[in-house]
Amino acid sequence: MEFDLIVKNGVIVTASEVLPEGLEIGVKDGKITCIGTGLPSTHNTKIIDAEGAYITPGGVDSHVHLAQANSPTGDGWETGSRSAIAGGTTTIIAFASQEREDTSLYPVLKDYHATAKDQSYCDYGFHFILTNPTPEILHDELPVMAEKEGITSVKLYMTYDALKVNDREVLNILFACKALGMTTMIHAESHDMIAFIIDGLERNKYTEPYFHAIARPRIAEDEASYRAISLAELADAPMLIVHMSSDVAVNHVRDAQTRLLPIHAETCPHYLFLLSEKLKAEPHDHFSGAKHVCSPPLRHDPKDLEGLWQSIANGTFTTFSSDHAPSKYDHTGGKKLGLVDGIPRFANIPNGLPGIETRMALLFGQTPACQPLEKARLSLPRFVQLTATNPAKLYGLSGVKGSIAPGYDADLVIWHPKAAGACTISQSMLHHDMDYTPFEGVEVGNWPRFTVLRGQVAWSQAEGVVGSLQAGKFLMRGRGEVVGGRVGGVPRGMGVEERAYWL
Amino acid sequence: MEFDLIVKNGVIVTASEVLPEGLEIGVKDGKITCIGTGLPSTHNTKIIDAEGAYITPGGVDSHVHLAQANSPTGDGWETGSRSAIAGGTTTIIAFASQEREDTSLYPVLKDYHATAKDQSYCDYGFHFILTNPTPEILHDELPVMAEKEGITSVKLYMTYDALKVNDREVLNILFACKALGMTTMIHAESHDMIAFIIDGLERNKYTEPYFHAIARPRIAEDEASYRAISLAELADAPMLIVHMSSDVAVNHVRDAQTRLLPIHAETCPHYLFLLSEKLKAEPHDHFSGAKHVCSPPLRHDPKDLEGLWQSIANGTFTTFSSDHAPSKYDHTGGKKLGLVDGIPRFANIPNGLPGIETRMALLFGQTPACQPLEKARLSLPRFVQLTATNPAKLYGLSGVKGSIAPGYDADLVIWHPKAAGACTISQSMLHHDMDYTPFEGVEVGNWPRFTVLRGQVAWSQAEGVVGSLQAGKFLMRGRGEVVGGRVGGVPRGMGVEERAYWL
Amino acid sequence: MEFDLIVKNGVIVTASEVLPEGLEIGVKDGKITCIGTGLPSTHNTKIIDAEGAYITPGGVDSHVHLAQANSPTGDGWETGSRSAIAGGTTTIIAFASQEREDTSLYPVLKDYHATAKDQSYCDYGFHFILTNPTPEILHDELPVMAEKEGITSVKLYMTYDALKVNDREVLNILFACKALGMTTMIHAESHDMIAFIIDGLERNKYTEPYFHAIARPRIAEDEASYRAISLAELADAPMLIVHMSSDVAVNHVRDAQTRLLPIHAETCPHYLFLLSEKLKAEPHDHFSGAKHVCSPPLRHDPKDLEGLWQSIANGTFTTFSSDHAPSKYDHTGGKKLGLVDGIPRFANIPNGLPGIETRMALLFGQTPACQPLEKARLSLPRFVQLTATNPAKLYGLSGVKGSIAPGYDADLVIWHPKAAGACTISQSMLHHDMDYTPFEGVEVGNWPRFTVLRGQVAWSQAEGVVGSLQAGKFLMRGRGEVVGGRVGGVPRGMGVEERAYWL
Amino acid sequence: MEFDLIVKNGVIVTASEVLPEGLEIGVKDGKITCIGTGLPSTHNTKIIDAEGAYITPGGVDSHVHLAQANSPTGDGWETGSRSAIAGGTTTIIAFASQEREDTSLYPVLKDYHATAKDQSYCDYGFHFILTNPTPEILHDELPVMAEKEGITSVKLYMTYDALKVNDREVLNILFACKALGMTTMIHAESHDMIAFIIDGLERNKYTEPYFHAIARPRIAEDEASYRAISLAELADAPMLIVHMSSDVAVNHVRDAQTRLLPIHAETCPHYLFLLSEKLKAEPHDHFSGAKHVCSPPLRHDPKDLEGLWQSIANGTFTTFSSDHAPSKYDHTGGKKLGLVDGIPRFANIPNGLPGIETRMALLFGQTPACQPLEKARLSLPRFVQLTATNPAKLYGLSGVKGSIAPGYDADLVIWHPKAAGACTISQSMLHHDMDYTPFEGVEVGNWPRFTVLRGQVAWSQAEGVVGSLQAGKFLMRGRGEVVGGRVGGVPRGMGVEERAYWL
Repeated sequence: MEFDLIVKNGVIVTASEVLPEGLEIGVKDGKITCIGTGLPSTHNTKIIDAEGAYITPGGVDSHVHLAQANSPTGDGWETGSRSAIAGGTTTIIAFASQEREDTSLYPVLKDYHATAKDQSYCDYGFHFILTNPTPEILHDELPVMAEKEGITSVKLYMTYDALKVNDREVLNILFACKALGMTTMIHAESHDMIAFIIDGLERNKYTEPYFHAIARPRIAEDEASYRAISLAELADAPMLIVHMSSDVAVNHVRDAQTRLLPIHAETCPHYLFLLSEKLKAEPHDHFSGAKHVCSPPLRHDPKDLEGLWQSIANGTFTTFSSDHAPSKYDHTGGKKLGLVDGIPRFANIPNGLPGIETRMALLFGQTPACQPLEKARLSLPRFVQLTATNPAKLYGLSGVKGSIAPGYDADLVIWHPKAAGACTISQSMLHHDMDYTPFEGVEVGNWPRFTVLRGQVAWSQAEGVVGSLQAGKFLMRGRGEVVGGRVGGVPRGMGVEERAYWL
Repeated sequence: MEFDLIVKNGVIVTASEVLPEGLEIGVKDGKITCIGTGLPSTHNTKIIDAEGAYITPGGVDSHVHLAQANSPTGDGWETGSRSAIAGGTTTIIAFASQEREDTSLYPVLKDYHATAKDQSYCDYGFHFILTNPTPEILHDELPVMAEKEGITSVKLYMTYDALKVNDREVLNILFACKALGMTTMIHAESHDMIAFIIDGLERNKYTEPYFHAIARPRIAEDEASYRAISLAELADAPMLIVHMSSDVAVNHVRDAQTRLLPIHAETCPHYLFLLSEKLKAEPHDHFSGAKHVCSPPLRHDPKDLEGLWQSIANGTFTTFSSDHAPSKYDHTGGKKLGLVDGIPRFANIPNGLPGIETRMALLFGQTPACQPLEKARLSLPRFVQLTATNPAKLYGLSGVKGSIAPGYDADLVIWHPKAAGACTISQSMLHHDMDYTPFEGVEVGNWPRFTVLRGQVAWSQAEGVVGSLQAGKFLMRGRGEVVGGRVGGVPRGMGVEERAYWL
Repeated sequence: MEFDLIVKNGVIVTASEVLPEGLEIGVKDGKITCIGTGLPSTHNTKIIDAEGAYITPGGVDSHVHLAQANSPTGDGWETGSRSAIAGGTTTIIAFASQEREDTSLYPVLKDYHATAKDQSYCDYGFHFILTNPTPEILHDELPVMAEKEGITSVKLYMTYDALKVNDREVLNILFACKALGMTTMIHAESHDMIAFIIDGLERNKYTEPYFHAIARPRIAEDEASYRAISLAELADAPMLIVHMSSDVAVNHVRDAQTRLLPIHAETCPHYLFLLSEKLKAEPHDHFSGAKHVCSPPLRHDPKDLEGLWQSIANGTFTTFSSDHAPSKYDHTGGKKLGLVDGIPRFANIPNGLPGIETRMALLFGQTPACQPLEKARLSLPRFVQLTATNPAKLYGLSGVKGSIAPGYDADLVIWHPKAAGACTISQSMLHHDMDYTPFEGVEVGNWPRFTVLRGQVAWSQAEGVVGSLQAGKFLMRGRGEVVGGRVGGVPRGMGVEERAYWL
Repeated sequence: MEFDLIVKNGVIVTASEVLPEGLEIGVKDGKITCIGTGLPSTHNTKIIDAEGAYITPGGVDSHVHLAQANSPTGDGWETGSRSAIAGGTTTIIAFASQEREDTSLYPVLKDYHATAKDQSYCDYGFHFILTNPTPEILHDELPVMAEKEGITSVKLYMTYDALKVNDREVLNILFACKALGMTTMIHAESHDMIAFIIDGLERNKYTEPYFHAIARPRIAEDEASYRAISLAELADAPMLIVHMSSDVAVNHVRDAQTRLLPIHAETCPHYLFLLSEKLKAEPHDHFSGAKHVCSPPLRHDPKDLEGLWQSIANGTFTTFSSDHAPSKYDHTGGKKLGLVDGIPRFANIPNGLPGIETRMALLFGQTPACQPLEKARLSLPRFVQLTATNPAKLYGLSGVKGSIAPGYDADLVIWHPKAAGACTISQSMLHHDMDYTPFEGVEVGNWPRFTVLRGQVAWSQAEGVVGSLQAGKFLMRGRGEVVGGRVGGVPRGMGVEERAYWL
């Protein structure tokens, strides 16, 4: 019983409890091997004194875009993973993206591996974005991905001309993935509604960034979410709807979960903290709204925020991810994408916000650790579920990532004791390769004092990023779990009884 | 004050009341000009003694297929309208159907007019089925249809390869129609779900007629109905979902009506009386289920019937139509469509059931006129709403058809007094050009004793069809009304506030 | 065919239609005997030229308090009925109220008859308020009321110390009434919640009139409505919840109606037009809020109004009544009830507002007759349903009151043509014996030009009240009808199957 | 680092995870002090080899009736706690019950303490049943109970003549408890509905045991649950509705939880496994149904079971308790309660079933530990939540009971490995002082091999009950936690904003 590292004097938070004070975490060979009191140390044992602070699992950010083909500027792996680790995230799942013309996933994966290898401060995996789900890919290649390559999730788009798949393709994919224990992520917005509105806005010359928020109304998310859930119900296949932004859509998920359908929901920091007013022009920069263009868009009404916070607390959201989609405001040489001959064209602005580094602190700041109880938005165990435990389970990392328990990787965030970590978010303090943060000026009650990756300190707020660029390892993921109530059997519902005939 | 016809001694039913006994209906020049007591008659006045029976407005059947290109056998105008009048229907709205390759509606309409002219025992109009809604058609031709040709409704399909339009096209049509006061009818089933299932059934060789009911599960209607309503909500445009067959879908309509969206719903006799067991083979004819193939299909569970009857009674359904879609079981020379080399192929069976003649009696049979009160399914005024008043209002015939009131066309159904009209439906008693009725053996408590079209007796159960084949006139219809609660303004909801920017 | 009165040149509105222009109404012996064109007149026939204006049925106000024991000041029969007729109401149903100590209803009824007889300008009936429903009353006296005395409805209170009955008593009454075809009206607010809050407010010395609105929150109505509906569902007995004021409660009614329970809902003008700000003190009169004290109270938020207007339009509300409950602001000699030694005590302020005269014009003002279509709140037929047809049906006056059709009493409101009747409501124009109107300053687009009671002009805006104080007759009412979808059978639901054992 | 006990080779289940295999639990002085691998042992260390079996926290049964005044026969503390420990339960919370005439709780508590002291094999606490909540008790005594006596929960009845409190009293109690951090348990059935039905059944002589299930229909639970939740919402106070039996009622809880109200729900084994057919007479014993009389009653329809299992899985139920309410079928000398002169009188049958010993195995049997995945009803972590973690948190035992983690009491259930523990429940194997089990013949896939109470083996299936009758200690409980989403603030809703005025 010997430890490489002992973390003393912290308060461990799990997905279900805040454990009693005074427990010690013993780490050996990168794994937590013991939690208890009076752990023996030797001169080889590194000791970290948590000084009474909370310790939570290293963050798992399951929705991250890095170095994709369609991201002309912004973070690659080095800066993205550096930003992650500095914000308390030890695992990221990024995307390998099939282009329409790619008829095989193998070369795509090879390229993505090549880009990431030895370029990450944190552990990582890939989801596959499917844009051309041929029978060969579904029936020949996906099994290889799941069983040999450790890739057990795919993402689909119901919108964007370059990416969208139709309902039939969604069904093909859901059935193929279900058989492999893969989870399907889906971007649910009605393409046709949005295209119709954009045509109208352009015809009427409403093309400033703010009209991006007009172009994608709540009903587009509402309808597409209902459709996506219906397709998943027909297939009885696990699905996660990504970056949900409005309660009308989340209500469909709540209903589905009540009926034990394997439906999951994700939201992101910007939908909880920001409104569409951010898309309006600032006094000295008429195009500044472009910094806050994402899809679904920021919503108009504080009630939208309230509705999402409610779903954070009541358990409907499964994961809380950054959807870090970095594209610099100033592209090379002052060129701004979406500004065409000086005229704003919101439809040309790259979609997505940076947020990989601020995610953990923003949500932790709403727990009772940082708020008087009557203002707290979520409990500490719920914070752990959303930022670490649930994404680990959902994406096949159970038993390895997402929990502070013996047998798991020693991935930890050690927060500052009490209010010592309070700070105001600013672009200058962040480690990404971006020229702005959408959360500029937001006050958070704490910040990770240390980020520990498999037993090694990778971030120390006092010393900065101290981990190694080669430290991050590719994660061979297993079958995902349904997170939530559904265990076995089939839900009561429509079309289910008859599936035997057509499968 | 002189009358061509006086109907005495009946009990008049309107859309809101059963009027006191003993009122007389005075008719002049085809119009009702007076309702009262003691109407003066001359030797030129024909008198009908209703003998205490109920009198309801002549039926308006707003969903009838006659002599369409894709109907190889079965009723044309003569036999179809004869069947209508013999069943108490004095107005039908049939379809003029654009084929995909038709780039103008004008020649299509000309053809349909040519086919119907002087070939109908009852009055008639056309809805236009749109399958290729080009900008020219939407912006140049539809206004002509609405304002010059008296055609103020269109029908769309979300399913069937040959007919379906996509969501963007639905939006284009909804906005175009809204501006013209036209009503959009929509067949709401998810094409992609159904196509997926059919592929599976065929792969597994489940192709008997019964599998038609498996191929189109309730969830396909549920999802498509939600989508259709969402598109109509975005457009804030009137819509009627045709032939609804399951309560999960109807519930979406109920919710929409509660929120005052201009959404209407239709159901048909077969969905209220028949179940999918009818699709199974009879002892001596393994293909007999083909007679009951319609889409959406007959449902499996008596609870489905209950749910629809509830919506008949509680006001959710706007109209009750036959969806008369006649295709003979035995096509020419014993050839049965859908039987390919002796092998049943449900996907090849023509969809649709005959029902134009049985519609009125089937529903009337469920009112307190024919049932003890505790077994009645709907009130007499509700019968009148569903079969006559509502379709007349919705499709632009207000003030002319659908009501028994001075100023309206004198279209009447005079029922038998008390139980005198009770009979059992059989193929032999019907007047269509079909070789079966799906309602064979169903007992009804009454049957129209007389059908009066614009003051002329057209059907007398004692004498048969006594009207003229040239009697039926084409109806120039006006703007439709929203039936239900919505009057003005816009509903509270999603995306509405911002419409000004993109319209 | 001879008429005492012919009304020409109007546009008749029924509960389902706006009839074509140019129809004439022929009246003989107080009844409508004919509607048509070209009615013959003699020199004995009075002719009214409606000048193209709308004609609606004389109003039926089914919730009116006149000359009750607990109304120390304000309208008695003469002034109350005068006010009714001047506002277009030809039938009122007032209350005969059992006091707790009354062990028989007979003497109570005798007293109320004595007070009303020959003192009413309009026809009238009584509901019985039950506060002490002894077995004798339920089983011996109610049948006499229903079958001999023409009283076929009772009213219960779930709140107010002096009036409330408990849930068991509600059940006793519901079952007794159901067997007799009587309708049960119920005031649904949680007594215990309200009493709890009032104690707290008094303890904290918050006793100004405004706190009346704080003392009776929406949840008190929400809970009691759900409870009342549950009791009615157990009994499967018709019920109307009176004066509903908040959408959370009305939603329960909507759900019940969807399931075909015989549940009805009423609202009143003040809940559609006024908010709780009216309860605050005016600049020069700190007690002025007392004028607007009613229960349930006026609500706080314009959204409450929106929700109720939605239920007006979508059909959930069955009736629209005044709940005229007149109590003068200045009682005799400047004494104001609720002002105790100069200190406001909201709990002592008499509850209720005057509104019998303004009811019809306020609602008519929101139809397309007075509003551009996009601002109209309800259709003209819906106006007729709410103000006349539905209360007549519900309370056993079918075939006599509430409709313009041959055979019905000739009770008519003839409005001014077009905008000729627009006016601003003020106390000075009204005919009640009250010292204020809560609708002071509200603009209405029309006002009854003539009110006709059984063929006699009783109100002419040009000449004033021209009817006779002895004109109003007591109405022997029959069994009520369920208004809405329920016809026969029992709804699917809870406890129903087993009723046979315990009834 | 020394241990009294090490449990090796088990699979630990927490409320959120199934931990990796091979972990060891180290126990010292009755507490878990370490979880890890390679724990050092000495000759003083007892070792238990779990042989690969699951280890779950010792059961917390938060709803147990033992030795109450109204329990004439059946279990007292010795036999009840013996039965608990033999079934895997290490903590029970029983009731101290105020009688109506008790004006102080102190002597009541003293009596209950006297009865339990040194008579329990397992740890225990008390809830207080309040039947006469005087101001003195609420304001003077409850604070003493919460702060000095370790009693932080009360239970109320909305039904039963001897026990029921009215809505106003419920409010008084909710507000008093909220201020003290106490949780209110409530039995929610409509007293008045039930009393009405019982009167009818008795009048009609339907008094066999089966009619108990007719007398208390689902709607009685539905209405009372809605009312209870409304009262708790007004108070914004934590509440648990005990022994819920029907999904219509549970749906109200789901809605409340969605809105973040602090509402909790409990169900019991009999509502998940048994139907009302159990209340019918067996061939040779016409009164046998009396064994299954409980309130709410067993329901009629398998769909009721399905609905409750759904709420077990989807997270709506907070706790799963036995509601052990033992009353022997054969009372002393063959006397059967409820059999009056040989005539069954269901209203006289003591309510309640025994189930303290079978609770854990029945639910564990539905997890994937005992079922193929497709048949499993709930996950292993959900089993732990329902049987141990949640009741411990809700009732103020956080950090002490309900979890397997360092710092907690070493209360463990060590199950048999794999299928080794499968057995069929029978009266003969149980340790209670009852003459039947309602679960006779039910097969369970496992049974506790060892029950460990604070580090001491108290039950060994091989050796029987090996703990000491004095082992159980009274638990001083702290403030309860809201289990579920609500953390701080107030929910959006009704009446909330105004609370400041009346509190």
